[in-house]
Amino acid sequence: MRTRHPRSACTGPLLRLCATLCLLGLGGAVDARAAAAPAAAAAPEAVAAQLRDAALAGHNIAYQWVSELTSHFGPRPAGSVNELQAAEWAAARFKELGFENVHIESFPITAWVRGAESAQLTSPLAQPLVAAALGESPPTPAAGLEGEVVSFASLDALKAAPPGSLSGKIALVARRMVRTQDGAGYGAAVDARVDGPGEAARRGAIAFLLRSVGTDSHRLAHTGTTRYVDGRVPVPAFALSNPDADQIERLAGLGEKVRVRLYSSASYVQDAHSQNVLAEVRGRVRPQEVVLLGAHLDSWDEGTGAIDDGTGTGIITAAAALIRDAPQRPQRTVRVVLFGSEEIAQPVAPYGAFGGHAYADNHKAELATHVLAGESDSGADRVYRVGLPQAVLQGEFARTALRVLGPLGILAAPQAPVEAGTDVGPAVEAGVPAFVLNQDASAYFDIHHTADDTLDKVDQEQLDQNVAAWAALVWLAADSDVDFRTHGAPPPPQP
Amino acid sequence: MRTRHPRSACTGPLLRLCATLCLLGLGGAVDARAAAAPAAAAAPEAVAAQLRDAALAGHNIAYQWVSELTSHFGPRPAGSVNELQAAEWAAARFKELGFENVHIESFPITAWVRGAESAQLTSPLAQPLVAAALGESPPTPAAGLEGEVVSFASLDALKAAPPGSLSGKIALVARRMVRTQDGAGYGAAVDARVDGPGEAARRGAIAFLLRSVGTDSHRLAHTGTTRYVDGRVPVPAFALSNPDADQIERLAGLGEKVRVRLYSSASYVQDAHSQNVLAEVRGRVRPQEVVLLGAHLDSWDEGTGAIDDGTGTGIITAAAALIRDAPQRPQRTVRVVLFGSEEIAQPVAPYGAFGGHAYADNHKAELATHVLAGESDSGADRVYRVGLPQAVLQGEFARTALRVLGPLGILAAPQAPVEAGTDVGPAVEAGVPAFVLNQDASAYFDIHHTADDTLDKVDQEQLDQNVAAWAALVWLAADSDVDFRTHGAPPPPQP
Repeated sequence: MRTRHPRSACTGPLLRLCATLCLLGLGGAVDARAAAAPAAAAAPEAVAAQLRDAALAGHNIAYQWVSELTSHFGPRPAGSVNELQAAEWAAARFKELGFENVHIESFPITAWVRGAESAQLTSPLAQPLVAAALGESPPTPAAGLEGEVVSFASLDALKAAPPGSLSGKIALVARRMVRTQDGAGYGAAVDARVDGPGEAARRGAIAFLLRSVGTDSHRLAHTGTTRYVDGRVPVPAFALSNPDADQIERLAGLGEKVRVRLYSSASYVQDAHSQNVLAEVRGRVRPQEVVLLGAHLDSWDEGTGAIDDGTGTGIITAAAALIRDAPQRPQRTVRVVLFGSEEIAQPVAPYGAFGGHAYADNHKAELATHVLAGESDSGADRVYRVGLPQAVLQGEFARTALRVLGPLGILAAPQAPVEAGTDVGPAVEAGVPAFVLNQDASAYFDIHHTADDTLDKVDQEQLDQNVAAWAALVWLAADSDVDFRTHGAPPPPQP
Repeated sequence: MRTRHPRSACTGPLLRLCATLCLLGLGGAVDARAAAAPAAAAAPEAVAAQLRDAALAGHNIAYQWVSELTSHFGPRPAGSVNELQAAEWAAARFKELGFENVHIESFPITAWVRGAESAQLTSPLAQPLVAAALGESPPTPAAGLEGEVVSFASLDALKAAPPGSLSGKIALVARRMVRTQDGAGYGAAVDARVDGPGEAARRGAIAFLLRSVGTDSHRLAHTGTTRYVDGRVPVPAFALSNPDADQIERLAGLGEKVRVRLYSSASYVQDAHSQNVLAEVRGRVRPQEVVLLGAHLDSWDEGTGAIDDGTGTGIITAAAALIRDAPQRPQRTVRVVLFGSEEIAQPVAPYGAFGGHAYADNHKAELATHVLAGESDSGADRVYRVGLPQAVLQGEFARTALRVLGPLGILAAPQAPVEAGTDVGPAVEAGVPAFVLNQDASAYFDIHHTADDTLDKVDQEQLDQNVAAWAALVWLAADSDVDFRTHGAPPPPQP
């Protein structure tokens, strides 16, 4: 789509120097009032605005980070050498950036490895299909499998099919995903990917096909993990690209009996490992109080994980680096966690989001002093909305945040977020208050989980706007004594 | 992109009835003045306007034709069963439409068959690449081949490399195609696809890679035929998707030595056949005078040949069907030819464009009475320009044509076309005057020769505009006695 080049030649050891220079007003457009004030006395709002403007002016490392991560390491499936090497690279970069307590926390996983795969129409005439095995899908028999396709409009329609009615057949759920700004269309369609294989197998199907959970119309299938039933995915399961699902629908409409042949040599690696990478900007006053920033370093295996979630890792790292190089540390600690093995995680216990669970387990004792948590994992498009915890929805913190974020085109969400993402999910479930910086997801699901998730889809200006929002909001939270759990209780009901 | 559904339920035997109804003014918006005039006395211009308006109002079969062709037969590579069955289907449809002299002319070809294929970066880290073998490319060894990539900015840069300098290496030409409305960017970039493998082999390369000749940024490679040298393509040759070419460029920019592994099991079928499908609307006065309309029925093998060239076959067929059902026949014969084996044809003798050459050979004696030829083979987007033969560039015919085509948003090309397309090329080289109805090609090369060439990319309103232009212009040419070879000689030079 849009190829941008980094505006700065800052790499490696130069990164920190560049970030510092810009905060000293030597690097470009820095808010004049803030720059004029003595650094030690700057109010949190002034520093937040200064960080925001530095990020907006391109004085941040996000694009360079995403470019190097996706170019050098390419796809980073959970448990792969690429994921491990990317984690080691990230830890080394964290040290160069001057972060503290940089380390890697490894944890065991069962890895899933895509093999060779293919799909063809065999009737009414041979035609190639574009399909991708869903994550965790078992392989087909070595000779492949073939069957008549029975199409359902939704997961509910599949669930309404009687037991045994799909014996020897291939079930297809052909629901179209709806395009929305907030990504709600994904939640409404993804149930078929999660539960479809189990429901199809329960009715005798030999395989499961899914119209891609995606909003594009390209010959690229959207993969994603499907759910275990009794510890395994019961039948081979594939996503079809949307034009391929259209084709099958049209052939059925012409009265044709559609048959499909499927092949996959996917496999599992039982003794694999993934890892979380941690780093901190230690707080100057109450370092035990942690503002947690998350994104995931692993990616799907067909693209290079640029928008999912290379950009998230770049955004939070760049924001933390700006904070690190501010004239003084914030009162609280800012902790960056690049999670491993997010994509392949099972959506439910006991196979839950591995990186997120590993973090919550390893840091259980600390969670009580985690004051706030947020995650960047919806691509690289602009932030348009901020959602704050219930405790601060109406108070001075929100008013300050909106003054700083408003110039970025960010509105207040009317309600507190119900969740903040997969990786910080276990911490949030354990009681850590969550914030969200909602990105415009209108185009995100054109690319999400496809081979098309590559660097050329990242717009550097939009990425900079994300860094600006994260740096400013995180600064405000970290350089404060606001209690996001209880402070500013909801206003009394109107009489 | 945009999925449209046919507005009419007209199929099969109903097609002709629908076309007739609309011309009688019963089918929708027909030009009021023209409809009021007695049919037998209608001036050519009035009939042309009537045909145009009927097509614009959706009373034409083009979309339904393209939908059925691409859905039922899918990809139609030259020499395949799909191509043959599509030809037989087209001939049957031609008869249903009331065309005359419907027949198939078969000719021998050597077919090229894509096999399994794959490409990976092997250094600095393993990454999958999206690549497609170029047409006519020989297979790799069964174990694949691997080598260091040497990148060139253009074919000329490759040609400047000394003999032997690529020994054991893989040559990559990474030139970016320029997006233009008239498609000129294609001509400027395609030389590397045509001549690259030969030039690389001459310098010792073991394989050839091409940055796709395409204007998109998706993980879909643009295939296309490459040129024989001494009767064969000398080394395996692949197109890389544009994001993959970007990735290699970035890795080289980071100082990495890039190595790639390639595999293809492509093969040749020596005793294959392709075929042209012919049909006519016989002229009422001078039936021996032929206006030739061409498009090609074969397609590349990864998409379903919707915009290349299903839409072309639908446009000329729909235009001829409107003419067939006009109140009276035109004075001259309108001949529709759906050519076979256009895509895989070698660009130069003796392996020239098979369908076009077969036609010119079979109809050599008739070419002297072919009064005009045109071809529709640039997708489905709007016609924006008409190019007429030199002999009529300035005369009354051009003025009439522009009055009829103007309301469609069509301008006059200032010069006569130098060529009209691959299929009618041999006839034009033999002296048949050519016209062109240039389609807006701005987006055509996003899709061209990729798996993404599917029905969802066809916009029905734009398709209707094409049919309107073809029906109107062809009527004017066919219902006239204009000599496009000599009539209206160029104006004398200005004093």
